[in-house]
Amino acid sequence: MTDDTLKIAGREYTSRLIIGTGKYKSYAQNAEAARAAGAEMVTVALRRVNLSNPDEDRLQDHVSPDKYTYLPNTAGCFTADDAVRTLRLAREAGGWDLVKLEVLSDQKTLYPDMEETLSAAKALIADGFQVMVYCSDDPVYAKKLEDVGCCAIMPLGSLIGSGLGIQNPLNIRLIVENARVPVIVDAGVGTASDAAIAMELGCDGVLMNTAIAEAKDPVRMARAMKHAVLAGREAYLAGRMGRKRYADPSSPLAGLI
Amino acid sequence: MTDDTLKIAGREYTSRLIIGTGKYKSYAQNAEAARAAGAEMVTVALRRVNLSNPDEDRLQDHVSPDKYTYLPNTAGCFTADDAVRTLRLAREAGGWDLVKLEVLSDQKTLYPDMEETLSAAKALIADGFQVMVYCSDDPVYAKKLEDVGCCAIMPLGSLIGSGLGIQNPLNIRLIVENARVPVIVDAGVGTASDAAIAMELGCDGVLMNTAIAEAKDPVRMARAMKHAVLAGREAYLAGRMGRKRYADPSSPLAGLI
Amino acid sequence: MTDDTLKIAGREYTSRLIIGTGKYKSYAQNAEAARAAGAEMVTVALRRVNLSNPDEDRLQDHVSPDKYTYLPNTAGCFTADDAVRTLRLAREAGGWDLVKLEVLSDQKTLYPDMEETLSAAKALIADGFQVMVYCSDDPVYAKKLEDVGCCAIMPLGSLIGSGLGIQNPLNIRLIVENARVPVIVDAGVGTASDAAIAMELGCDGVLMNTAIAEAKDPVRMARAMKHAVLAGREAYLAGRMGRKRYADPSSPLAGLI
Amino acid sequence: MTDDTLKIAGREYTSRLIIGTGKYKSYAQNAEAARAAGAEMVTVALRRVNLSNPDEDRLQDHVSPDKYTYLPNTAGCFTADDAVRTLRLAREAGGWDLVKLEVLSDQKTLYPDMEETLSAAKALIADGFQVMVYCSDDPVYAKKLEDVGCCAIMPLGSLIGSGLGIQNPLNIRLIVENARVPVIVDAGVGTASDAAIAMELGCDGVLMNTAIAEAKDPVRMARAMKHAVLAGREAYLAGRMGRKRYADPSSPLAGLI
Repeated sequence: MTDDTLKIAGREYTSRLIIGTGKYKSYAQNAEAARAAGAEMVTVALRRVNLSNPDEDRLQDHVSPDKYTYLPNTAGCFTADDAVRTLRLAREAGGWDLVKLEVLSDQKTLYPDMEETLSAAKALIADGFQVMVYCSDDPVYAKKLEDVGCCAIMPLGSLIGSGLGIQNPLNIRLIVENARVPVIVDAGVGTASDAAIAMELGCDGVLMNTAIAEAKDPVRMARAMKHAVLAGREAYLAGRMGRKRYADPSSPLAGLI
Repeated sequence: MTDDTLKIAGREYTSRLIIGTGKYKSYAQNAEAARAAGAEMVTVALRRVNLSNPDEDRLQDHVSPDKYTYLPNTAGCFTADDAVRTLRLAREAGGWDLVKLEVLSDQKTLYPDMEETLSAAKALIADGFQVMVYCSDDPVYAKKLEDVGCCAIMPLGSLIGSGLGIQNPLNIRLIVENARVPVIVDAGVGTASDAAIAMELGCDGVLMNTAIAEAKDPVRMARAMKHAVLAGREAYLAGRMGRKRYADPSSPLAGLI
Repeated sequence: MTDDTLKIAGREYTSRLIIGTGKYKSYAQNAEAARAAGAEMVTVALRRVNLSNPDEDRLQDHVSPDKYTYLPNTAGCFTADDAVRTLRLAREAGGWDLVKLEVLSDQKTLYPDMEETLSAAKALIADGFQVMVYCSDDPVYAKKLEDVGCCAIMPLGSLIGSGLGIQNPLNIRLIVENARVPVIVDAGVGTASDAAIAMELGCDGVLMNTAIAEAKDPVRMARAMKHAVLAGREAYLAGRMGRKRYADPSSPLAGLI
Repeated sequence: MTDDTLKIAGREYTSRLIIGTGKYKSYAQNAEAARAAGAEMVTVALRRVNLSNPDEDRLQDHVSPDKYTYLPNTAGCFTADDAVRTLRLAREAGGWDLVKLEVLSDQKTLYPDMEETLSAAKALIADGFQVMVYCSDDPVYAKKLEDVGCCAIMPLGSLIGSGLGIQNPLNIRLIVENARVPVIVDAGVGTASDAAIAMELGCDGVLMNTAIAEAKDPVRMARAMKHAVLAGREAYLAGRMGRKRYADPSSPLAGLI
């Protein structure tokens, strides 16, 4: 398994589990969860996380950017312009080139606006960013995003924060079959089996926040997710048995006793 | 996690994954899969596995009874009498008290005959056996089997060897809620997420054979299953987030940039 | 469609929808629902429905036994003895030979106790009853019940009054494939599509109570269910298209314009 | 039910089932299916159906435009320009203003290209067409299409011709909740219960072709679908019972016998 790494924008990761930095009780708990998850990348909502005010607890004091790749995201942006502006500011402030783009449509669903998302992706890529992109599970748009140069496609499993799991495995599978860049399910995972299912569909990774942060015991759930992603990945690589409609005895009858 | 052990018939196990000894290419491969799975117990079809003929490869030469608890089973028995007789012979030959009872109904479904199963369970328990029992997912019969003294309830997820996963999670959940002895899903698991789901429902363990033995790479699938059982167990103990119908942003809006 | 009738115990029915007589606001509403459903048979909980006290509203004053086959049932009986006694009293009082047997296990699940159910079925059949039998979805027990002479097998879709639909379509399908007497899904239907699914699996009929009685508009839901049973039956007889993983254009390309 | 009509572009329909005109053995069979379905609108692939060559069988000789609203569609168009051109030609030839727009992405999935679809919709509406639009199940794009003036939103249930049913009921439900124009599930229905489910989600209608045309008995399946759409519609209007996790006896215990 040592050589089964995830390559994004020229870097290699052993872990296929990306976690968030929102909704935790504290950055300290967040850090503990990141360790338990074995994560190597964390996504950071630029508008919500304290990175700069030294009078308050700062993320980087707990989750070190030396140990974790920071993936700044545009949570809370509802237009392409807003998302592009946010990431340009972030690059000036923190030097981040690798970013997660999300352009949302409305507060009720937090679904991505794919038209605005594609437009923002083009602008950012023209501007030299490496763009991982949060998107719907529409295989056609996933391909468009890859074609304009996104370095990872991040389709939703279901609504952000819903914990409903992967609503349309067929679409996720179609996206995986067509993609030559990593596909990472982002949003919708609620528990360990959801993450395993994403990986069994052939995804390259899973990103989650609420499933860990809002579990009764977030650190334990982080550990569960680490195992779940490994389980799903290994099962995908191992090649599952076929499904049969009728029973099949576990071995040919031999009759020894 | 160190103190989260599975107790069956007075013994403690760290692993919650029991694997079979049928359908493998060789006992050597079987042994390698057992190691990869981290299993501590293997089930042995008395009628199918070579334990006694020294001229042929024997299971115990590869999967040592010193390292693995052997759980003899009655696969291939279609009446209570046949199952009871088989296990009595086994006890004489191998000294096994802890057994897995299965009394099947027909070759097409290999579903358990619950009437015969209950009758055999009573006879075996009266005879001093510790009986782990393969059963349908009927919560009423699961309770009857516990009431007559079975030491573990092993409801099917779906048909033996079908790989269809857990067909009726509601019934498995009802069985778990009512049981005071371990509940171990037996039959039906096809891939890693199926095992995780079983554990997330609160089961105490999972038994599988075909899912590992008939994967394209059985040893890798065994490793997947080890992680899957851990993932599901930890997720169950961690307490999953609630499901929501609408989206929920990953953190309260704060607006830092 | 005119010759597609349901034959039970020597009688023919055009309708394949059996409805209950509990939980309605009044017997008048019950009667209206029966008409809207196009039902020809209604099941009557002997312990709950008023048939004899002339000082209160009686079922037969609204749902005439001349127009509807009354199918007395043993709802509320938790042992074989109790069920047998109840039906003997009913036969003395009302002359009913065709009965629906249910022997329940506990108040929480209302699942049938299959051991007691089989025992009661044998006693009733020996006593000259025509027994339609409420049972679990265990194909093995369904066969036993047919073998002792039950004239219809009535497996549950899910828990009584739960509205959860058919939890295990595979089992229902196996029961249908093995049966030479009518199979009628009883319990669990929540809305129209659930009833259609039951019929598409090849069942001969559906029995429901709560889905109609507890709909916001019971009479309208009764009409929905009439259509649903017809829809599912016709779809089953018509033979559905195959499922395909990839798209298939609706017609060969021809290019006329 | 008489006043429960479907209004599209100023016209009222009693039937909520729209059927196709492809894949049938003959236009005569197509006509018979339309009658059995009780359809009042049929969709016509302009590029595939013979409307003009009098030397061959023509659709209108069997399915009369006097009795059925013809809904010309752009099946086979893969760009906005192509779709717009096709419909302009059709209007010149046949005077059709009410059209079904579909702009597909690729032959493998036949998924709509939403970017091109939106662009074509704008052009057609500016040009005076009444546009019913085939689209993905993305609620954000569904809203955009309504906002530019489409008179009906037609999200896919699953891939065209796949018979896989509604893959993502949650999205269909979100589209329905947000729409002020009719929502009609188009593509994916395989059997009767699929159509009932679409209607139970609150859709205003269902369009299907393969499910009927490729059934073993297309006319019988058409009749099944008529009932299925009525069943689902009535169930939606009736208001289904709540789902319960535990059993609920069909009536309060009374004890009359």
